[in-house]
Amino acid sequence: MYNLLKGKKGIIFGALDSKSIAWKVAERAHEEGAKFVLTNAPVALRLGTISELAEKTGSQVIPADATSIMDLENLIDQAMKVLGGKIDFVLHSIGMSVNVRRGNHYTHQDYNFTKTGWDVSALSFHRVMSVLYAKNAMKEWGSIVALTYMAAQRVFPDYNDMADNKAYLESVARSFGYFFGRDKKVRVNTISQSPTATTAGSGVKGFDGFIAYAEKMSPLGNATALECADYTISLFSDLTKKVTLQNLFHDGGFSNMGISTAIMDDFMKDYENDNAEEPVEKSKK
Amino acid sequence: MYNLLKGKKGIIFGALDSKSIAWKVAERAHEEGAKFVLTNAPVALRLGTISELAEKTGSQVIPADATSIMDLENLIDQAMKVLGGKIDFVLHSIGMSVNVRRGNHYTHQDYNFTKTGWDVSALSFHRVMSVLYAKNAMKEWGSIVALTYMAAQRVFPDYNDMADNKAYLESVARSFGYFFGRDKKVRVNTISQSPTATTAGSGVKGFDGFIAYAEKMSPLGNATALECADYTISLFSDLTKKVTLQNLFHDGGFSNMGISTAIMDDFMKDYENDNAEEPVEKSKK
Amino acid sequence: MYNLLKGKKGIIFGALDSKSIAWKVAERAHEEGAKFVLTNAPVALRLGTISELAEKTGSQVIPADATSIMDLENLIDQAMKVLGGKIDFVLHSIGMSVNVRRGNHYTHQDYNFTKTGWDVSALSFHRVMSVLYAKNAMKEWGSIVALTYMAAQRVFPDYNDMADNKAYLESVARSFGYFFGRDKKVRVNTISQSPTATTAGSGVKGFDGFIAYAEKMSPLGNATALECADYTISLFSDLTKKVTLQNLFHDGGFSNMGISTAIMDDFMKDYENDNAEEPVEKSKK
Amino acid sequence: MYNLLKGKKGIIFGALDSKSIAWKVAERAHEEGAKFVLTNAPVALRLGTISELAEKTGSQVIPADATSIMDLENLIDQAMKVLGGKIDFVLHSIGMSVNVRRGNHYTHQDYNFTKTGWDVSALSFHRVMSVLYAKNAMKEWGSIVALTYMAAQRVFPDYNDMADNKAYLESVARSFGYFFGRDKKVRVNTISQSPTATTAGSGVKGFDGFIAYAEKMSPLGNATALECADYTISLFSDLTKKVTLQNLFHDGGFSNMGISTAIMDDFMKDYENDNAEEPVEKSKK
Repeated sequence: MYNLLKGKKGIIFGALDSKSIAWKVAERAHEEGAKFVLTNAPVALRLGTISELAEKTGSQVIPADATSIMDLENLIDQAMKVLGGKIDFVLHSIGMSVNVRRGNHYTHQDYNFTKTGWDVSALSFHRVMSVLYAKNAMKEWGSIVALTYMAAQRVFPDYNDMADNKAYLESVARSFGYFFGRDKKVRVNTISQSPTATTAGSGVKGFDGFIAYAEKMSPLGNATALECADYTISLFSDLTKKVTLQNLFHDGGFSNMGISTAIMDDFMKDYENDNAEEPVEKSKK
Repeated sequence: MYNLLKGKKGIIFGALDSKSIAWKVAERAHEEGAKFVLTNAPVALRLGTISELAEKTGSQVIPADATSIMDLENLIDQAMKVLGGKIDFVLHSIGMSVNVRRGNHYTHQDYNFTKTGWDVSALSFHRVMSVLYAKNAMKEWGSIVALTYMAAQRVFPDYNDMADNKAYLESVARSFGYFFGRDKKVRVNTISQSPTATTAGSGVKGFDGFIAYAEKMSPLGNATALECADYTISLFSDLTKKVTLQNLFHDGGFSNMGISTAIMDDFMKDYENDNAEEPVEKSKK
Repeated sequence: MYNLLKGKKGIIFGALDSKSIAWKVAERAHEEGAKFVLTNAPVALRLGTISELAEKTGSQVIPADATSIMDLENLIDQAMKVLGGKIDFVLHSIGMSVNVRRGNHYTHQDYNFTKTGWDVSALSFHRVMSVLYAKNAMKEWGSIVALTYMAAQRVFPDYNDMADNKAYLESVARSFGYFFGRDKKVRVNTISQSPTATTAGSGVKGFDGFIAYAEKMSPLGNATALECADYTISLFSDLTKKVTLQNLFHDGGFSNMGISTAIMDDFMKDYENDNAEEPVEKSKK
Repeated sequence: MYNLLKGKKGIIFGALDSKSIAWKVAERAHEEGAKFVLTNAPVALRLGTISELAEKTGSQVIPADATSIMDLENLIDQAMKVLGGKIDFVLHSIGMSVNVRRGNHYTHQDYNFTKTGWDVSALSFHRVMSVLYAKNAMKEWGSIVALTYMAAQRVFPDYNDMADNKAYLESVARSFGYFFGRDKKVRVNTISQSPTATTAGSGVKGFDGFIAYAEKMSPLGNATALECADYTISLFSDLTKKVTLQNLFHDGGFSNMGISTAIMDDFMKDYENDNAEEPVEKSKK
């Protein structure tokens, strides 16, 4: 629409199906004139519908397990070959908790699952950047973005060990972002997005209720996947060259709310009912 | 360059001369297809060179003292008349400390000056939004941005009472931003910019040294006024519709640095010199 | 109970009646072996029952309007005379919004009231420290504490302009705390306390409902006034000598909650009711 | 000194030798009337001098590898037996990065080392709490504290992957703290301590220079290990019952400094030298 990414080359991790934020980012990046490769873990490629996206955006799909340095090295070599040069932007949209899938309570985790979740969801971001950095694969003033969630700062009980993984991920963005900035003039940020009804998120118990809660708390309502894609485009564009090491909330204002009048009104209705004076008949007893 | 603000209407406060961030924002907004009015206090209009900017961007200048509700009401009425409709974006770039100008130490302020500085630098932002809100002058999904500085979060001793004013300003952004979001679908954010060599800033003692320090601390170096304008454009554009109540650091990463290797190396040189063993001749005395 | 403040001398601002946090701090400081003077604005002295507290704790009451430098100078001179030396600890527990009292909406303030509220609630803290600093009235490793509320960071719509005042107050704590630390070895912190059912707070519409909400959100429940006094004692004691420039949440964990299961369960009950399938009879229509 | 922990029972992890913060905490807890067991990994027990501390404080040493659930189960069973009841306080002071030890750069880690460091430094805190929670071993209103460092929030390049480990640790404190608070009335916090010259820290290149830098930046100077112990005692005591989920900076104010005049003066000396006009002789060449 604006040619914001004209001539830019990218790698997009994590587009599973058309509900994925990464999918929307790919569609918007394509509209803005970018070329990119799509990547995901082999199992996700089978489960999802990424070939449809590849066709639509004229992109190539290169499988890579983000826990494998060898896969990542191959991915980045191939990407530079396919795209004809260094990379301008990277989206990391990868997250998975085995403890959540198996229904383990946060206080009683299987630590092998914890390790796998951390490895896939958080350490993978270090690995991706490590390979990009070692291969000198990012163009100067390039932009790396990872998606995260506010459970890294505040307690959302059902988010389970993903909260801790996201805290680690955000720390990696700062720690690696320093070296990537200093040495390669590349910026690294995370976007902390509203709860979003993706296929990955839909498994969580009571997730639609929580989305409704966040909607009522946020002055502008929840941010959609498409809006997140728009915001991501702005962070890939040349308009944000000096934004780095930041965790950027994209959530309709939720993150800075203590309480909204809408949520308070709901609460007060119940509260007043519960604390209403007892009717005469009852108090007669 | 991208037509990001095509058809959008705005009000830009605080362009004094070509070094001003607000001046750069006006130039960039013009390039992006926006129409806007320029405004500043009558005294600033006389001191500066705003008519040059007005001519260059085809804008009208409407004087307004941001501490006067009547001036602001007139400004907004005129702006809507001149621009032919509601306002899409507003930039608040106003700040002034009389205590700093007079050389009063932070611990020994003249509280009349403190009040004036707070009134001009911080309360003015509430006033601007109050008039926009009451007149229902903002278009849905419009964007209001104020410029701020990290002294609102951390101590920079020479920033004096402007630190406290900026903390108030950022709080107003959140507090008013809630109502503006909920009731009018308008977003309100602040940009916390690198120290910038504007005419307003140049009076501060040792300011160029401090800029050099920030440059060495920031992985990407300081953000310039033009880069700040680019970032502001992204916040006025439709790419950031769900970003609200945020204080957004635009500083090359300074805000999340504990220490950089460049600053540490400088420090260590001095430290090692100071702690070197005394030479024999000296210790003989 | 522990003799934590044995031999220490203090000034306590803001004890109105036995519900006041400052009142509880005075009682606890007395139990811990401190001597102190009590102070409040003349009007508050008349409205409250401070003489009872003075008697109970063997303290003298010295009236002072915290917006008057002359009153504060007199207070501090008198306090040092009465107590026989420099001051070890100071509690600032002062806050008042005329806009709240008069029922003005946040978006439509009377700015004279806004100024008065800011002057009384926020600038007063600067004034108190300014006089203590100028008179060199604080003992080395002394402790200054002001009470604040989380509305300084996040939106609580009914808190009105007190949110912005508290943001300013917390900034003053940092800004002045730097000079007080560097020059006098005195620490300055703010305690961000749970909503507390004091006489001052009881006027706010729906305040008891909000207290119930905060209780349900906080893993340990709300902190009481007495618990706040205990915490304040710890900050006046020698156990916390190197804690400074901090805003310390004392709130049963509220500040780091995204949502609690208790609040979510309440919300889900309503949500499921509202989203339940319509009964057959209804859908027949 | 104050009997603050009279009758309280605790477990202290991580006392290696007399420089350790945990060692000082043990000494101070003993002075305050607590009984506790000491624990550390078998290898640390051999390297250190913990038996001296055990003797001095009348404590028993129970070896436990904090990465082993079985060891922790045994530890907690034994501790309750030895101390005669449930636990009132726990100190987690465990941290180790193999990448740092081996001199791997942050951008080029050995991920097996990364995993080990994360497991020992961060996940261990989850394990400890998990066993305490499952065994219902904490007394109501008990207190759990872990030591951390500000590299979790801001970049300190030499802190390497410990930065990310500490971010994870702090997140675990919040996430688990919610459940521990809600279900057991136990509080969980982290103390973010000044750089401290312990045996564990002394290996880091340039660490003494960094300590000197932090000293100059902090208005009250760095916090010592003994001061940290004092602060920890306050968090174990009944004065802080409603403080939970917090990360508490104990650092002489460093965390909220942008720059100190002392650091700025140092920087300016170099800056002015580097930018001085060249002397005539030199410019003649």
